[in-house]
Amino acid sequence: MSELTLYGHIASQPVRSVMAYLKLSNIEFNFELVDFTQGAHLTEEYTKLNPYQTMPLIVHNGYSVWESAAIISYLAETYNQDNQWYPKDIKLRARINAFLHWHHQNIRDPCMNYLRPKVLGPKMYGAPEITEEIEAPIRERFNQMLADIKWTLASTRYIARSANPTIADIFVFNEVGLTLGLFNLEEHPEIKSWYEEIAAIPALKEITDQCFEIVRKILG
Amino acid sequence: MSELTLYGHIASQPVRSVMAYLKLSNIEFNFELVDFTQGAHLTEEYTKLNPYQTMPLIVHNGYSVWESAAIISYLAETYNQDNQWYPKDIKLRARINAFLHWHHQNIRDPCMNYLRPKVLGPKMYGAPEITEEIEAPIRERFNQMLADIKWTLASTRYIARSANPTIADIFVFNEVGLTLGLFNLEEHPEIKSWYEEIAAIPALKEITDQCFEIVRKILG
Repeated sequence: MSELTLYGHIASQPVRSVMAYLKLSNIEFNFELVDFTQGAHLTEEYTKLNPYQTMPLIVHNGYSVWESAAIISYLAETYNQDNQWYPKDIKLRARINAFLHWHHQNIRDPCMNYLRPKVLGPKMYGAPEITEEIEAPIRERFNQMLADIKWTLASTRYIARSANPTIADIFVFNEVGLTLGLFNLEEHPEIKSWYEEIAAIPALKEITDQCFEIVRKILG
Repeated sequence: MSELTLYGHIASQPVRSVMAYLKLSNIEFNFELVDFTQGAHLTEEYTKLNPYQTMPLIVHNGYSVWESAAIISYLAETYNQDNQWYPKDIKLRARINAFLHWHHQNIRDPCMNYLRPKVLGPKMYGAPEITEEIEAPIRERFNQMLADIKWTLASTRYIARSANPTIADIFVFNEVGLTLGLFNLEEHPEIKSWYEEIAAIPALKEITDQCFEIVRKILG
């Protein structure tokens, strides 16, 4: 039995990023579903493991680590991994870490701030459709994010300015993947070719297919 | 001459956090002022060093690293540091990394989202004072952040749930320090005693005093 358990829900972008890293690094793990649609992340039992009540969470030999990017660093050290996804090279790792810190406010926020009121609110929580007045500035911020992705990719074709795809590409792929209904990928050929390349990574494709199937069920 | 240069402005919270780490770790560095009030971070020269046009930036033997938390990791590795501020212990480091990732949306955003319209806009850029209607939700988010800090400190008295203060305490200290005019520290005794303990760290005190003097001049 594995000493490592990943807690989360496959609809969560950062959960999928950690899951992909585990699979791409051939690290064995158990998966424990946290059904956030039923508030499973708010229970006393889960809060004992993760006081922040967030996903993903790993429990490794009884020790809890939360926050997806911190989990990647912890796993790379603990399992002594040195692969292209999160290499040991200090310079390359600095580029990846810098991007993962930057992405919270500049990739994840613009995606979630659009997804929540536009899709999740009306389809999951019975909120009214948002007005154009409310949507316009949110969409503008989202479009700025698409421009940032294009500009970032222009350097080496990959997110962390590396010669090969890294975990930073996977983080952005998972965020953008859930927003495909909110913009037309065909209008952004540079993002499209990158997106399709990342999407085709077998371990990731399996996770994404599973996610899209479950998300379709949740959103009805 | 030191092989390391820190670029930034002492009014910037993350610049001060990196500066404190360098001083607390006895790492020699040159300091290069980036006068953001004159747009120095937007010049072609600076953009070549840091395409993200953010502060802080370090250039170490010709290699650029941006994003404060990524800089801390890079410095700890490159200078082989293992001190209380960012220890090598994998478990402790995971707690610190988790907090530094969490803090972008949950500490820095609520601070800056209040500071910008309430203080910086009117005092630096001639924007009108904000109305109570605009301020109320921003202040509410800020107060939620104060509650989060209290809850976080309740575990071990320090931010990263560690036995000693770490770089996570310094990051939060620097963010909260600039917002002292926006709330009454006396009403939050748990935060006050932690704040005063961190403020008294000699290397940090020197930086903070310098910052407050310069901020007073900028805000007039």
